Amino acid sequence: MGQWERFLQPYKQAVDELKIKLKGMRAQFEKSNETSPIEFVTGRVKPLASIYDKTLEKGLVFEPSDMLAHELQDIAGVRVMCQFVDDIPTVIELLRQRNDIIVVEERDYITNVKVSGYRSYHMIIEYPVATIHGEKRILAEIQIRTLAMNFWASIEHSLNYKYKGIFPEEIKNRLQSAAEAASRLDEEMSLIREEIQEAQKYFTEYKEA
Amino acid sequence: MGQWERFLQPYKQAVDELKIKLKGMRAQFEKSNETSPIEFVTGRVKPLASIYDKTLEKGLVFEPSDMLAHELQDIAGVRVMCQFVDDIPTVIELLRQRNDIIVVEERDYITNVKVSGYRSYHMIIEYPVATIHGEKRILAEIQIRTLAMNFWASIEHSLNYKYKGIFPEEIKNRLQSAAEAASRLDEEMSLIREEIQEAQKYFTEYKEA
Amino acid sequence: MGQWERFLQPYKQAVDELKIKLKGMRAQFEKSNETSPIEFVTGRVKPLASIYDKTLEKGLVFEPSDMLAHELQDIAGVRVMCQFVDDIPTVIELLRQRNDIIVVEERDYITNVKVSGYRSYHMIIEYPVATIHGEKRILAEIQIRTLAMNFWASIEHSLNYKYKGIFPEEIKNRLQSAAEAASRLDEEMSLIREEIQEAQKYFTEYKEA
Amino acid sequence: MGQWERFLQPYKQAVDELKIKLKGMRAQFEKSNETSPIEFVTGRVKPLASIYDKTLEKGLVFEPSDMLAHELQDIAGVRVMCQFVDDIPTVIELLRQRNDIIVVEERDYITNVKVSGYRSYHMIIEYPVATIHGEKRILAEIQIRTLAMNFWASIEHSLNYKYKGIFPEEIKNRLQSAAEAASRLDEEMSLIREEIQEAQKYFTEYKEA
Repeated sequence: MGQWERFLQPYKQAVDELKIKLKGMRAQFEKSNETSPIEFVTGRVKPLASIYDKTLEKGLVFEPSDMLAHELQDIAGVRVMCQFVDDIPTVIELLRQRNDIIVVEERDYITNVKVSGYRSYHMIIEYPVATIHGEKRILAEIQIRTLAMNFWASIEHSLNYKYKGIFPEEIKNRLQSAAEAASRLDEEMSLIREEIQEAQKYFTEYKEA
Repeated sequence: MGQWERFLQPYKQAVDELKIKLKGMRAQFEKSNETSPIEFVTGRVKPLASIYDKTLEKGLVFEPSDMLAHELQDIAGVRVMCQFVDDIPTVIELLRQRNDIIVVEERDYITNVKVSGYRSYHMIIEYPVATIHGEKRILAEIQIRTLAMNFWASIEHSLNYKYKGIFPEEIKNRLQSAAEAASRLDEEMSLIREEIQEAQKYFTEYKEA
Repeated sequence: MGQWERFLQPYKQAVDELKIKLKGMRAQFEKSNETSPIEFVTGRVKPLASIYDKTLEKGLVFEPSDMLAHELQDIAGVRVMCQFVDDIPTVIELLRQRNDIIVVEERDYITNVKVSGYRSYHMIIEYPVATIHGEKRILAEIQIRTLAMNFWASIEHSLNYKYKGIFPEEIKNRLQSAAEAASRLDEEMSLIREEIQEAQKYFTEYKEA
Repeated sequence: MGQWERFLQPYKQAVDELKIKLKGMRAQFEKSNETSPIEFVTGRVKPLASIYDKTLEKGLVFEPSDMLAHELQDIAGVRVMCQFVDDIPTVIELLRQRNDIIVVEERDYITNVKVSGYRSYHMIIEYPVATIHGEKRILAEIQIRTLAMNFWASIEHSLNYKYKGIFPEEIKNRLQSAAEAASRLDEEMSLIREEIQEAQKYFTEYKEA
């Protein structure tokens, strides 16, 4: 276990730092009296059991290695939750502009919804961690999603855990219709958001006149 | 401000303690290898601006007093989020059984949905805080709701803040249809939950045979 | 391990609650514009390895049991650090007056310094933890000490870990003279404290005149 | 206040990030089964009242400005506590090697003890904070000291606050003799540390033989 602990330590450090950094962005919006596109932020290091499952799936040896670090891009994972779908591009842009992370890859499961109904925006980043043995550049995954996307995904995740991905037809159907309901909710909210912004524009014009 | 800070201090202490206590319940379920009916817990002391608004609304004097402590039952507020609607009665029962809080009142806005579409279960509790000047019994509000209820409520709350409660017809309609979508989502999820439990029962029977 | 985790869970919960409660006392002094007798608070659950060592030492079976819970009174441990020796009786009195803990035993290693040079005040308390399976009353140890006492104790502890309690004569002598220096530091500080308080009294008389 | 809050926000962010980063170094030593030269880490943003006092002292205008950011180098402050004096150079070297901070200045109040008796090692660093409005490079101060140095300094600080730096002769003398006692404690501890390391070397040789 000591070997794994050492291997995972920079990932844990990266998650801690990224959480502090992204939560800080939220605080900065609030201090500037702007509504934050970030609602809240969570993070985790992939549990050993999930790493093991993943190595089986990918035909990799289950031991700490550069190969593993290269193949498993979500050992360090951070999740950003937004209130509105339209907040997501804002968050993506803010992340692209940061100097302390390098975006390596982006996967847009919002435009291209997964067949399961899963929606989310994924960014794979390279992040430098200053360790006591020198700098270590690790890969991390940032997931950006609305509260509704997250709500659905967390339920699918726990069902997945039960059924190992092979859902009974009945449950599959329900999950899908739930995904649609979540998606509809997001759409309606988007429309309200536009109206808020229009209302705000109106008031601003008025004030400046 | 010093006077208000002193008045609010036991409420802040109560929120901190209640958060630790309810988060602890979640951890206990996990350690027992049972799925937790509690998904996550948040808490806050009512901001001074909101206390001020409330005194105006209720025709009270805006100053720290026993009257205020008696009339405003949500100065200390804790919120428990559940994955499924059926987790809510479990949480209510667990709270009723605790020796360290006294349930003073319960309001069921899930059975009796508010006209706005608001759904949530509220408990007003009495909670003893041991301060450096002796024990102080304060009132606190615990809100119990699903993630979908919370999702809708947080959006309604920010719109409320914009429109001061007087929504344009268009937005009112959208909020209501969103409330229905959120509610539908919860219902579908409930059905899936039952199937999971049936599935679990089946597996359990099989194992014991 | 699952069995131990379950056994230790209420202790972890107790440590979390006691830390929040004692840190809260500090905050209350600050809000009241009084200097706090509490400088900072730490806590820990006794690591399994130390529990194991203790069972060997006491001739107990190393397994979760009521016997163990009764014999090992410091499985849950909280430490209160004070700036001045004279703050310690104040903290003791505040703890005795709380309704949410029952003081079971007190050991005064400040009046009765251990031969090693160890100084600290220990209180064994009974503390009720509301768990999901009902109330559980556990034992916990609260240690109260000055920063200087703590400084010395933490160094002795790490040496103890190295030498398993059997110190070479040289080191034993040094530790003892260090203990004396730490003690002298506390005494001198106490004298300054009295002068501060006299000065404060003087100023107060002057103001009231 | 809004203006000050915005000015101070990147400093708060820097303190949060630096705390996470330096605490992480401690964790890395532990995971590598090496004794950590870092005992614990604290941090704070300079309170507005202290910033005000400093502007008076330096003849600066009390308002958020680049001038202020340049002149006050300790608006963001982080403190690293060590068990032994000999741990301090190790920490300094680790900080110099990090790529994410630039050391701008170093002040060695351990070799050159202040007349008051104050001992500590100060590093002024430049630290880039990625904000929502782009990167901002701020100055921060890292103080490195032993527990004994910190113990004495925290008491001197609270007396300073009382006496505004002009101590009565009596107290000045006591503070000085306390500083000497603290210093003596550190020296004795250093000697023990060397013996531990010699002991360790001995054991290691033995093992490898």
